[in-house]
Formats: sequence, C-alpha cells, structure tokens
Amino acid sequence: MTEPPLILVTNDDGVTSKGIRSLVEVALKFGKVVVVAPDKPQSGMGHAITISHPLRLTPVDLFDGVEAYSCSGTPVDCVKLAVYEVMHRKPDLLLSGINHGENTSTNVLYSGTMSAAVEGAMENIPSFGFSLKDFHADADFSGTQMVAEQLIQKALDKGMPNHTCMNVNIPKLPASEIKGIKLCKQAHAFWEDRFDKREDQFGRPYYWLTGNFECQSNEADTDLYAMEHGYASVVPTQFDLTNYKAFEPLKDWNI
Amino acid sequence: MTEPPLILVTNDDGVTSKGIRSLVEVALKFGKVVVVAPDKPQSGMGHAITISHPLRLTPVDLFDGVEAYSCSGTPVDCVKLAVYEVMHRKPDLLLSGINHGENTSTNVLYSGTMSAAVEGAMENIPSFGFSLKDFHADADFSGTQMVAEQLIQKALDKGMPNHTCMNVNIPKLPASEIKGIKLCKQAHAFWEDRFDKREDQFGRPYYWLTGNFECQSNEADTDLYAMEHGYASVVPTQFDLTNYKAFEPLKDWNI
Repeated sequence: MTEPPLILVTNDDGVTSKGIRSLVEVALKFGKVVVVAPDKPQSGMGHAITISHPLRLTPVDLFDGVEAYSCSGTPVDCVKLAVYEVMHRKPDLLLSGINHGENTSTNVLYSGTMSAAVEGAMENIPSFGFSLKDFHADADFSGTQMVAEQLIQKALDKGMPNHTCMNVNIPKLPASEIKGIKLCKQAHAFWEDRFDKREDQFGRPYYWLTGNFECQSNEADTDLYAMEHGYASVVPTQFDLTNYKAFEPLKDWNI
Repeated sequence: MTEPPLILVTNDDGVTSKGIRSLVEVALKFGKVVVVAPDKPQSGMGHAITISHPLRLTPVDLFDGVEAYSCSGTPVDCVKLAVYEVMHRKPDLLLSGINHGENTSTNVLYSGTMSAAVEGAMENIPSFGFSLKDFHADADFSGTQMVAEQLIQKALDKGMPNHTCMNVNIPKLPASEIKGIKLCKQAHAFWEDRFDKREDQFGRPYYWLTGNFECQSNEADTDLYAMEHGYASVVPTQFDLTNYKAFEPLKDWNI
C-alpha cells in the first residue's frame, strides 16, 4: 500500500486567515497535511528570508487535528523551517495560499504567497500558489477550491515539470461562472507607484505606498488577459532570471 | 550642452556601510548622484515592499555634498520612494551596492541589493547591482570599483537592453589579480539549508537560518564558475518568471 502524499500548506496572509483554512480543506482530500504559516500578515514580503534575528515556531491547534505551526518569519522562512525542522524531508506537494488578492504578472515578485511556491520549486517540490482576486477577509473561496482541486489532481496524475511551480489566479466569480482554466505566460504589467504623503502629530512626513497596476501589452496568452475574461490563469513559474535574449546585443560591450 | 546623467545609488546593507560609500565614489565620476538607502541592514529582504505600515525618509549628510536620504523601508521601497518622491522622475542610471557578500546564482532572489536593481529593470531604468565576495564591514572595494567603472562606461556608451539589469559579482582579489569580466548565465545552485536550534532563557526553542550553498551543475558559462576562476561575472537579469519550456510537457494536463 502506498502512503498518501505529504502536503505542506503555507501562505502569506497569516495562519489565521480564511484563505489558508480553505486551502487546508482542499489539501485534506489528497493526503496528510502539515501547516507552517506566518504568525502575522506577510503580504508583499517577496522572497525575503530572516537572517538578522532568530525565528520562532509555535504549535497551534487551528485546523481540527492537523499538525500546524505559526512561524515568526516570512513565507519563505516557513517553507525552509517546515522542510528542515518540522517534516525533516521534502513534502510531496507544497500549496501556498489561498491568497486574499490576485498575484498575476510581475506581482509574482512582490508576493509572499508566490515566493513560498518559488522556494518550493527551488527545492524541486511540486508547488502551487493560489490567489483569489478578492482582498476581503471573508472572501468566497469556493471557486478557487474547485480550481485548486482540479489542478492538484492533474499534478498527482500527470506529474509536474522539474523545478517549476504554478502561479494560479482565480477571478472573483461564483464557481459556476468561472469559464475554465488557461495555461498562460506572465503579463508585461507594472505598478504605476504613488505615495500618499501625510504628516504625523509632530509635523513629520510619512509615506504610504499605493498606485495603479498598468498593463503595457495584454496579449491573449497572458494571465491578466485570462483573468479579465473570466478564466482562472496558470503560469508555470521558474527562477532563472537570466535574460538570454540580451546576450546578442551585449556582444557590443566586448567584455 | 547635455546634462550629466542623474544617478540613483541604493543598497541593502544600509546607508552607513562602506560598500555604498565606495559606489558613490564611482558614481560621482559619471554624473549627479542622489542616494536613497535603508536606515538599517536589509540583507535577504528580496523583493519585499512595505504595505502594512508607512515609510519614513530622512535627509542625511553622509556623502560630502551629495543629496542623500535614509529610508525606513526595504531596498525596493528605496527605489520607489526615490523615483516618485525624491527625484520626481526616473534616473538615467540606478546603481545598487556594493554589497558586502556575493549574490551569484539563485541568491539573486534573496538579495535586497539585486531586488533594487530588478525593480529598476521593471521601471526600465538602466540598472546595476554590484556585489563583492567579502562579508567584512571593512572589505577592500577597490577591485569592485574598477569593474564598476568599466561597466558603467559601457552602459553609457553602448546602452543597455530594455527592462534588464546587470547582476555583477566580483571575487575577493586585489584589483590587479582580477582576470577579467565575463558575461554569464545564472548558475543552477541552491542553499542546502540548516537551522541552528537553540534555547532561550525560558527553555523555549529558537532557530537561526544557516546552510551551505551547493552547485548542482557548474557549466563554464555560469556566474559561479567565472567567480571561482578569478573573473568578475555579469548576468543580464530580467523578471519574467514564466517557464516557457514547461508549456510542451504541460499539454498533457489538457487544461
């Protein structure tokens, strides 16, 4: 008899968020689940790791019989601690999310949810990041759960490409209105940043990061395009940042 | 008469580090310099941005007549604040570093130094991250300064590919012993993580992240290989994480 898969669940919104509870529900259909997730919101933490102070790991009883820990670090710290100090082996599957808010396009770089999945890819663990285009704490995750279940089944049945994770985004729609799932590339879109400058009680300035997300070329095969047209998007994601196309023009530098 | 280039200098070791002072010295040979850098060490912060609390920006007089600010945020926050609240335009060149410690291979993802440069690439600002393989606070940056000067001159003379930054690493060698500069790809190498588990005064565990960096395939055209053989490495770096090679095998998923 084969063992059921060992599944690590993490996120960036924190161990108490509705999104991670929804993902644990899905994961329990497929295998043995262990949760290691941040003890506080870690949105926008990207691929940060904690090297200047030590980390804490605290057992929590939040998921009805599931072994779970809250961690004082970042999402990437959670993956490293889970593999090396909790499981003492690589899990068979890593699931990150469900994020409250989408992580399409270049948001993959800022996202703690996706950075946990990218860390999984670096460890060559089949990994998914799931994000719903709804920031609300009580968002309806049922459509995302349906998509996640389908994709996890595909990964278990067909396997995953090596050193790759899946960036899965789901539109804010009832499950019955999601048109399907599309395999996509990362859209070429960026934040047009703005700062909201205010003054504190001493007259000293402080700045809140804000802005608009602007798409510069929304071809039909991008994640943003799929999402705008009612589809869930899946971008196979890797971590080699080399710009191979730049080698030819850089010959001119003669180095 | 053309204006001299406007150059933004930032880093992740903090505005008071020797590395950034060494880079400002180089930058001043090429144009008008503005410094916006973290008020404390931000190594390992990756592409983190600060969204849950506001940011502070404080003028500092550390670079003999150069407009400079310390920022309470991450290296990527520094770039965003510099462009939108300090310069009110994109600089002509962004220089990040000089980092105390190398950022070859997948360290590009963890590195605050390189994430600032990648943020520059997203803004389509010609950007460099410079890192010296020497963690010491009083490291000798003269070899790195020599390499940086050569590469900045190339960028100004020949131009840079769009939406690309350069990940430049320099071996710990006297300037005269650096064999040359090699254009490279990112090596396929990873941290074999370990945690040093200790107990505090109350008997509660805490964990320090540590580990060894392991190279899985060190071909002669990688940054790690160049560095190991006495060359400075230059990896043209971009931010599209799509794994295009995965589309073919993923046809099997029928999504």
